[in-house]
Amino acid sequence: MDQNNLKRQAAAAAVAEIADGMVLGLGTGSTAAFMIELLGARIRAEGLRVRGIPTSRSTADLARKFGVPLTDFAADPVVDLAIDGADQITRAGLDLIKGFGGALLREKIVADAARRFIIMGDASKLADHLSLKVPVEVVRFGWEATSRKIADRGAEPTLRVQPGGEPFVSDEGNFILDCDFSALGAAIPDPARRDSELRALVGVIETGFFLGRAARAYIAGPGGVARLDRTAAA
Amino acid sequence: MDQNNLKRQAAAAAVAEIADGMVLGLGTGSTAAFMIELLGARIRAEGLRVRGIPTSRSTADLARKFGVPLTDFAADPVVDLAIDGADQITRAGLDLIKGFGGALLREKIVADAARRFIIMGDASKLADHLSLKVPVEVVRFGWEATSRKIADRGAEPTLRVQPGGEPFVSDEGNFILDCDFSALGAAIPDPARRDSELRALVGVIETGFFLGRAARAYIAGPGGVARLDRTAAA
Repeated sequence: MDQNNLKRQAAAAAVAEIADGMVLGLGTGSTAAFMIELLGARIRAEGLRVRGIPTSRSTADLARKFGVPLTDFAADPVVDLAIDGADQITRAGLDLIKGFGGALLREKIVADAARRFIIMGDASKLADHLSLKVPVEVVRFGWEATSRKIADRGAEPTLRVQPGGEPFVSDEGNFILDCDFSALGAAIPDPARRDSELRALVGVIETGFFLGRAARAYIAGPGGVARLDRTAAA
Repeated sequence: MDQNNLKRQAAAAAVAEIADGMVLGLGTGSTAAFMIELLGARIRAEGLRVRGIPTSRSTADLARKFGVPLTDFAADPVVDLAIDGADQITRAGLDLIKGFGGALLREKIVADAARRFIIMGDASKLADHLSLKVPVEVVRFGWEATSRKIADRGAEPTLRVQPGGEPFVSDEGNFILDCDFSALGAAIPDPARRDSELRALVGVIETGFFLGRAARAYIAGPGGVARLDRTAAA
């Protein structure tokens, strides 16, 4: 089974949680795209009345394409259920690294405003420990100084660029530094400390660490979709 | 003596600290405008070779007008001396509230990158305790949700608007919430705690609290310019 089929299966399991009347947070990325398509199908088939806050312009475009009504924080300040993908997911704590697609800031704002936050992914995203580069959204002005401060905290930051070599600019108009912590170990040691050190830096807007936020993950592998619930102990 | 004369005197005292070869942080506002004009005069009169990182577009325009060479963090990641005004300055600790002019984010990035940060002001800015509204720069997306979280921390936030009623947008493209803490007391209790609570919120980029950052303040009053140094104990 190819990876896209797995993503679609995970998305279907998440979409099954959506109930009539909900305000949804609509994630960004390839798995979220399946989620929006399948949600559109449920809306047409069942007359489900839901509305979603998109976490990116591309997700807003997809929602319009598949007939998912959109809303915003002015109309709906509280999100009932946010559904998103992730770049890496820990088995035990459902800690995440997100932001490879560049939408981490809006994604975190939506997840933070949600009563419940669930994750979809294929089994390749699962890990025992977080180990990928961590995208960090920074203010454009003075990003060079911010990058030096991040390096002082043990990471190796690289400015994300577009294929043409120009800096990547997020939907909110900021830069992204992809931060490699591998000098500290194969697994990122104490992600909560890393996150709080990064967030304390002047110039850092948000990090791609999503720690202790996801309540559940649907993970699709060759044997079907596994449901992982974060336990209070994790 | 009118307030503009006082501002000019305070600016002159700060400009006297500038030495040949320095990389400067150039603040924003009416007092900073005098500082840039007086610095331009020193450059012309003494052949002083300095370069400055401006904290706003308006300051960059003034620097060009008065012949102050500009630089940026790519060329000069470390600032020798940052000079700025403030909206409120505490006598003992030189803690500040800044951001009434809307440039707080760039101002804090420059102050944070500076080896030394000094403040100019007229005596009306001095106070025993911080008590003004605190400007807080927030991500535009989801600002309504961010505002609710700030209100949960005991402040009353108001979206800053332009004279025409449209939201004010900072040079970095963000919104500003002016946060009134007067429900907690005439003086803001424990500003360091307020600052850290605000900065921890998803959606908050930076606050107008500048705590423990200024090394010196030049304060101009009817009796002349007073020099206040922050003591280690403060």
